[in-house]
Amino acid sequence: MAMPSQRLAELNLKLPSVAPPVAAYVPAVRDGGLVYTSGQLPFVDGQLPQLGLVGVRGGDVSPDEAKGLARIAVLNALAAAAAVVGGIDNIERVVKLTGFVASADHGSTDERFTGQPGVINGASELLGEIFGEAGQHARSAVGVAALPLDAPVEIELIVRVRD
Amino acid sequence: MAMPSQRLAELNLKLPSVAPPVAAYVPAVRDGGLVYTSGQLPFVDGQLPQLGLVGVRGGDVSPDEAKGLARIAVLNALAAAAAVVGGIDNIERVVKLTGFVASADHGSTDERFTGQPGVINGASELLGEIFGEAGQHARSAVGVAALPLDAPVEIELIVRVRD
Amino acid sequence: MAMPSQRLAELNLKLPSVAPPVAAYVPAVRDGGLVYTSGQLPFVDGQLPQLGLVGVRGGDVSPDEAKGLARIAVLNALAAAAAVVGGIDNIERVVKLTGFVASADHGSTDERFTGQPGVINGASELLGEIFGEAGQHARSAVGVAALPLDAPVEIELIVRVRD
Repeated sequence: MAMPSQRLAELNLKLPSVAPPVAAYVPAVRDGGLVYTSGQLPFVDGQLPQLGLVGVRGGDVSPDEAKGLARIAVLNALAAAAAVVGGIDNIERVVKLTGFVASADHGSTDERFTGQPGVINGASELLGEIFGEAGQHARSAVGVAALPLDAPVEIELIVRVRD
Repeated sequence: MAMPSQRLAELNLKLPSVAPPVAAYVPAVRDGGLVYTSGQLPFVDGQLPQLGLVGVRGGDVSPDEAKGLARIAVLNALAAAAAVVGGIDNIERVVKLTGFVASADHGSTDERFTGQPGVINGASELLGEIFGEAGQHARSAVGVAALPLDAPVEIELIVRVRD
Repeated sequence: MAMPSQRLAELNLKLPSVAPPVAAYVPAVRDGGLVYTSGQLPFVDGQLPQLGLVGVRGGDVSPDEAKGLARIAVLNALAAAAAVVGGIDNIERVVKLTGFVASADHGSTDERFTGQPGVINGASELLGEIFGEAGQHARSAVGVAALPLDAPVEIELIVRVRD
């Protein structure tokens, strides 16, 4: 199995730079052998590429677009984790992912968006591509009313650090 | 105190079979002495018995019905945890439960559902019945806009494994 | 650096008493060197000072008011953690904070509240004031449809215990 950094290169991906701490919290904390990341938004060069609620109907962002944003957000989460352990190759495995999807809900069953798993697969699949079996994680996917800065998705990780 | 498996039998309950992994995530991950489960929906034989938002008024599912679904979902979560540690009797204690309730919210105080604790008690009480004092857990209960597949509740656990 | 208990006194704050356990869950669980708190509401003497959704427009509670409630809720979370480890000075550092904000969402971008980070800063900043660098935590802030008892904010913590 290739190292995660090799897999990133093969996938033509680069860990983004980590946004500087805001207020009294930080992008990630190492505690013993685990790293907890903050919830990460799909920033690309400091900008959110799309805003609003995800939905099939009545949404601002399509499920497919949101899946792409989840992929971006998890890459930001990996960057945050990597920064506190000396690089992505020091991540031994991914333990837990929580994915929040800002979800259209106009009170009618027709318009309520319930495809959160497909959206968060954008994050889970990238973890599989980078880490292989070590990328297999426990996961919760949830649809929420609104996310910071009107971001469509937010991802947080718990990862195990290599000894 | 009876073993959890004995208590299950006395309660006339059986751990359900665990749904196979979907995409690049798994039902539960063991990391050291802890198991993190994925968010579990109230599947019964692969079907969700009820769909939609929980509410007193304007809800698809009543609070009482939702409490029953929370009981089912936590049983699925225990099954997921038990499967990675060789059985439910290897669960030493329940550490944390997070319960998400898809909650009616039509913008008026009257219709907004705020009884999440009563719903998630369905899960907490079953943990008490099965594990006794070792089932006493920290817990968050939250009302969300929508859940995967239009499930009314979703439950995730962190449990400690017996040495 | 002053001990957390000294900082509390200098800030003219007192840890509130911890609400008694409800049903089969408890305010906080210690597992090894970590404490997981239950989601804490901004109770003051057993009452919620304000109810409803947070929003700039169409909200029941203003973002500034909600920031104050987040400060109260995290103090309750610290009280819950302190109670299981023999006092706040036995908290070595804050690892993770999750903040849920009941957020106005009337389907229009104008009325959807997306300022969760500013609200949860009320909690994060207090942790910084009390713990200094040891208060720097990973954090997720999320906007949800409704919270227990119609509370505007809910905060949960994971903290590391001093050896």
